[in-house]
Amino acid sequence: MIKVGIVGGTGYTGVELLRLLAGHPDVEIEAITSRSEAGLAVDELYPNLRGHYPGLAFSEPDPERLAACDAVFFATPHGVAHALAGELLERGTRVIDLSADFRLKDAEEWARWYGQPHGAPALLEAAVYGLPEVNRDAIRQARLIAVPGCYPTAVQLGLLPLLEQRLIDPDHVIADCKSGVTGAGRGAKVGSLLAEASESMKAYGASGHRHLPEIRQGLGQAAGQPVGLTFVPHLTPMIRGIHATLYGRLTNDPGDLQALFEQRFADEPAVDVMPAGSHPETRSVKGTDICRLAVHRPGDGDTVVVLAVIDNLVKGASGQAIQNLNLMFGFDEMAGLQAPALMP
Amino acid sequence: MIKVGIVGGTGYTGVELLRLLAGHPDVEIEAITSRSEAGLAVDELYPNLRGHYPGLAFSEPDPERLAACDAVFFATPHGVAHALAGELLERGTRVIDLSADFRLKDAEEWARWYGQPHGAPALLEAAVYGLPEVNRDAIRQARLIAVPGCYPTAVQLGLLPLLEQRLIDPDHVIADCKSGVTGAGRGAKVGSLLAEASESMKAYGASGHRHLPEIRQGLGQAAGQPVGLTFVPHLTPMIRGIHATLYGRLTNDPGDLQALFEQRFADEPAVDVMPAGSHPETRSVKGTDICRLAVHRPGDGDTVVVLAVIDNLVKGASGQAIQNLNLMFGFDEMAGLQAPALMP
Amino acid sequence: MIKVGIVGGTGYTGVELLRLLAGHPDVEIEAITSRSEAGLAVDELYPNLRGHYPGLAFSEPDPERLAACDAVFFATPHGVAHALAGELLERGTRVIDLSADFRLKDAEEWARWYGQPHGAPALLEAAVYGLPEVNRDAIRQARLIAVPGCYPTAVQLGLLPLLEQRLIDPDHVIADCKSGVTGAGRGAKVGSLLAEASESMKAYGASGHRHLPEIRQGLGQAAGQPVGLTFVPHLTPMIRGIHATLYGRLTNDPGDLQALFEQRFADEPAVDVMPAGSHPETRSVKGTDICRLAVHRPGDGDTVVVLAVIDNLVKGASGQAIQNLNLMFGFDEMAGLQAPALMP
Amino acid sequence: MIKVGIVGGTGYTGVELLRLLAGHPDVEIEAITSRSEAGLAVDELYPNLRGHYPGLAFSEPDPERLAACDAVFFATPHGVAHALAGELLERGTRVIDLSADFRLKDAEEWARWYGQPHGAPALLEAAVYGLPEVNRDAIRQARLIAVPGCYPTAVQLGLLPLLEQRLIDPDHVIADCKSGVTGAGRGAKVGSLLAEASESMKAYGASGHRHLPEIRQGLGQAAGQPVGLTFVPHLTPMIRGIHATLYGRLTNDPGDLQALFEQRFADEPAVDVMPAGSHPETRSVKGTDICRLAVHRPGDGDTVVVLAVIDNLVKGASGQAIQNLNLMFGFDEMAGLQAPALMP
Repeated sequence: MIKVGIVGGTGYTGVELLRLLAGHPDVEIEAITSRSEAGLAVDELYPNLRGHYPGLAFSEPDPERLAACDAVFFATPHGVAHALAGELLERGTRVIDLSADFRLKDAEEWARWYGQPHGAPALLEAAVYGLPEVNRDAIRQARLIAVPGCYPTAVQLGLLPLLEQRLIDPDHVIADCKSGVTGAGRGAKVGSLLAEASESMKAYGASGHRHLPEIRQGLGQAAGQPVGLTFVPHLTPMIRGIHATLYGRLTNDPGDLQALFEQRFADEPAVDVMPAGSHPETRSVKGTDICRLAVHRPGDGDTVVVLAVIDNLVKGASGQAIQNLNLMFGFDEMAGLQAPALMP
Repeated sequence: MIKVGIVGGTGYTGVELLRLLAGHPDVEIEAITSRSEAGLAVDELYPNLRGHYPGLAFSEPDPERLAACDAVFFATPHGVAHALAGELLERGTRVIDLSADFRLKDAEEWARWYGQPHGAPALLEAAVYGLPEVNRDAIRQARLIAVPGCYPTAVQLGLLPLLEQRLIDPDHVIADCKSGVTGAGRGAKVGSLLAEASESMKAYGASGHRHLPEIRQGLGQAAGQPVGLTFVPHLTPMIRGIHATLYGRLTNDPGDLQALFEQRFADEPAVDVMPAGSHPETRSVKGTDICRLAVHRPGDGDTVVVLAVIDNLVKGASGQAIQNLNLMFGFDEMAGLQAPALMP
Repeated sequence: MIKVGIVGGTGYTGVELLRLLAGHPDVEIEAITSRSEAGLAVDELYPNLRGHYPGLAFSEPDPERLAACDAVFFATPHGVAHALAGELLERGTRVIDLSADFRLKDAEEWARWYGQPHGAPALLEAAVYGLPEVNRDAIRQARLIAVPGCYPTAVQLGLLPLLEQRLIDPDHVIADCKSGVTGAGRGAKVGSLLAEASESMKAYGASGHRHLPEIRQGLGQAAGQPVGLTFVPHLTPMIRGIHATLYGRLTNDPGDLQALFEQRFADEPAVDVMPAGSHPETRSVKGTDICRLAVHRPGDGDTVVVLAVIDNLVKGASGQAIQNLNLMFGFDEMAGLQAPALMP
Repeated sequence: MIKVGIVGGTGYTGVELLRLLAGHPDVEIEAITSRSEAGLAVDELYPNLRGHYPGLAFSEPDPERLAACDAVFFATPHGVAHALAGELLERGTRVIDLSADFRLKDAEEWARWYGQPHGAPALLEAAVYGLPEVNRDAIRQARLIAVPGCYPTAVQLGLLPLLEQRLIDPDHVIADCKSGVTGAGRGAKVGSLLAEASESMKAYGASGHRHLPEIRQGLGQAAGQPVGLTFVPHLTPMIRGIHATLYGRLTNDPGDLQALFEQRFADEPAVDVMPAGSHPETRSVKGTDICRLAVHRPGDGDTVVVLAVIDNLVKGASGQAIQNLNLMFGFDEMAGLQAPALMP
């Protein structure tokens, strides 16, 4: 049994950590912090947790208490982990950061996209990008994990087999992504109101989104060269889920694409390659850490289409964070993550 | 480890049994039947189950195979359990019927509401109405369980404390109930299409609904006299959930209503009385076997308002069925039912 | 052709006035004000209006410009119309207030419910409560209209025939109301986010809601005596619509309830009594000024159930405001209000 | 005032014709046919029409009565118009077919995609493809109109400027399209249930969809050469709306893309090019005949992204049909189509 802390627990990824960890056999919550809600019982804010964490309340962030944890999750806006991670790491606590703070290897690029200097560039080298399907061994040894973003998770998992095998033109990859509204967080914004966002569909950030450099970094590593990516996210009238529709142009005979995908992910507990001809639905992964994939080659032409679905709050955030924790501490990789999706 | 069978597994309550039992430590699925889908892998119909039941396919109902089970769930339209339950019971298999077949004690009344003769009146006496909050001891000994309907569960749990204590006028009770669309099942009906049922609200069955006699029967037992109930169900644009808003007129000084409710359900693992002043949300019980209740007395007048929420597919069907199974076989009453609700 | 102004045009009732008035043959918009968005083109905030009001932008409230209008709508939070209406009225401009400022005849009661002194009690006597089905003649002569609230409109229209005819017990009336989220306005509140409010149902204000005194006032006038009302509003996962389910206990033989309702509203252009046995859907009035009603008497017992649906932004606000305007200026009562509902 | 008939009026495009024509100054409905619902009042099936078409009921298709109309709309499954259009045309009635029956110029290709021989190949030459933005003059003279499909309308309007000017590689065009569920019609299919289709997103027909040859035909005409199109439609949890996200690779310096689009559609009453940087929302065209477009060039690279939104039932079907009717009969092109979108 290890002790974990959660910094910034009032947002959707914080409560999702609590939801999932309620069923984890080896983890107990030592502290969950929130400056704005300090003192409030967690189940007052999230009544779904009533009965699961009796007595647990949000607390002011207390470095001593956090340093007493075996691991601390940061479920915070960008910038916060920069300030606190170093001290925790020095004191032996492992850090799993769900924010963007340590995802980009290049501090300059981070600064450009986030409009502020990187606050802890010295930690970047040690930070491991927490995509188990790429970095499992490094994750096992890591002390600081940068949990991938939601879009980057779906896009990378869908494109890895094609780019690793140099099958598609790396200069012209398209990721058309559709996300539920929890991707925008729990902040009270007019555009996220049910009255504004339901019964409608729209793109946003067509000219540039903060997840773009992260995706490019990951795809570039897979391809062994820079990848030219057009990434258009869309706001979809649903709570959870990302559907990434990925288009690549084949430059080589790909052989059996279905077999390629099945082999690439054969041993991956969180990736499910569906049978040929499938169209995965986001609801089939709702609440789970699974990414479901299907690969199509319409009309046997030179365009390959990959369909990838995840739950943005689970495989795209808190579930993947726990998958990383499990690897770091030698637990079953999917501990706490095994319940089937709620469907319907 | 016991073996269970599911008859009629393609509907929503069937798949919900599978979803919940995937996490049950003491149960394995021996057979799941469907005449229409025999031969189809369950995870082809319900991809959320991929990886959870490898090799499990729908099969033709085979009495031998079902009789080899310790217990059989009927997740069938009304009438089916009438025909099969007797034989299974004779051969020692316990039966948990999620349909309406054994809910009414009066076979004549059943025949009136369902438009056909009752097919197994001889079994009615032995059938136990599976509401643990009322019949826990009988359930432990039962061989045939009639799992309560979804509306009846929410309405009874909300009104029991008031009727048992003779606090409200039994002749004028109102149950205004709002249900998600899964209450109408998985049948392809125009009125259940997203294009028809979303972005709208409507009542139905205002002049009489099949759950009415079941609710009256249960309330009458609690009150020790017949209860005059007006029950108006409404179709709500959501997938899961029932919100029952219950109105009673106080005939006696009720004292501390909050304490009354808290005491009545103090030892109930599936009922959560929320703090005074609360308004429970259906999403707080989504996917769970919990009923959350709140009691209000507006303006300290003579009308008491009880708010009760359940997930119609869980506490209103499959979860309650498993709660009954757990009691019948001496398992932890909430085994397989402990995951928190998915929220948001 | 008359000139109208709209004060507080950025909220949902403001834009709804613009949407409806785009098709009104006799009205042109002289000014639409907003302190927060002054200078912004209206169609930048509401792209559905692109092409309909070229050049129209939100402006700072300018009393001169407003006083040059024949009529001014207030689509503002409570308190604003108190401050401005008097001056406009003195200068001959008629005022149609969509807020709660002039709905209650008793300034003391207003102060209690709104937590601040009434700012213009001298105007209360002249203010006409703008429910055409009750006050049509007075509206025609009025210079200051208090447009009824959304819940009060649905509840009153549904109960008027019963109370006017003294058919039900006035001490025990129940209004169980379900509203779409636009009833909470366009303010950015966490509880109104799609991620929070969709796929769920909840009551709110069960112990007291600001619309309660307004409804009681109207029902009391109809009944000729005070009415004891229990009013429980619910937040429903849809954008628009109110479904009021109304329960009364019959104290006299009501005769033919269907005929009663049909006769009461025979000449009402905005009220549609549906055939016996109907269950009106909110979507059948979406975008329209119509209230559809159905009356039921379950089991021929002593409880009567009335189902009333309106669009909270139209008959419950902006449409009814225009209906009042039409009456005040001698236009066709339904001018600008005749398009059928969008369905599906 | 002309008389029109509607064949196959019970589906969504049929009722949408009625909704829109209720406000058309020059059209009256002579007959609306339905074999399955003959005798039923239209407002019994569609209560939103109560008061708008008193006395109008569905009737058996009667060639005499239809031939007495000036124009007949076919809102039927494919194949029906093949059988009836010829006779009507011979008798002088103009035909506006909303189905796919006359959209493809090549009867062989039609037969391949629809799995049956084309039933009226002799009429194909005279049939005009009813996209006013391309064929306005021909429409004015036409006697038989093939109203474009919903996806084809959005995709063609978004790509026309680029292909007409030969700015993008015609061999590699991608159309990632998201449609509301009414695109699947009013048929009772499990996959279209609210319980199945809401809170989820999925692609379908990734390997080939019946709209593909229609889109290719139209794009090929614009480009002056065959166009290689990858078209992936997605089912989106909303009632109405199509969002097409279109990707082309620039092969020439496009100059000012914004100006190109604005000029191309400067005189088009049903196309609205939004300001540079915009992201149109489907709700901004809900219920209207407008297509809103925005063009982006992310990172000034060689990929151009066009965002196109329509209401699939209006500009994608019934509205466009009326726009054609207006042109054919010399009415204002947007008569009956001028109400702003319902928003929120």
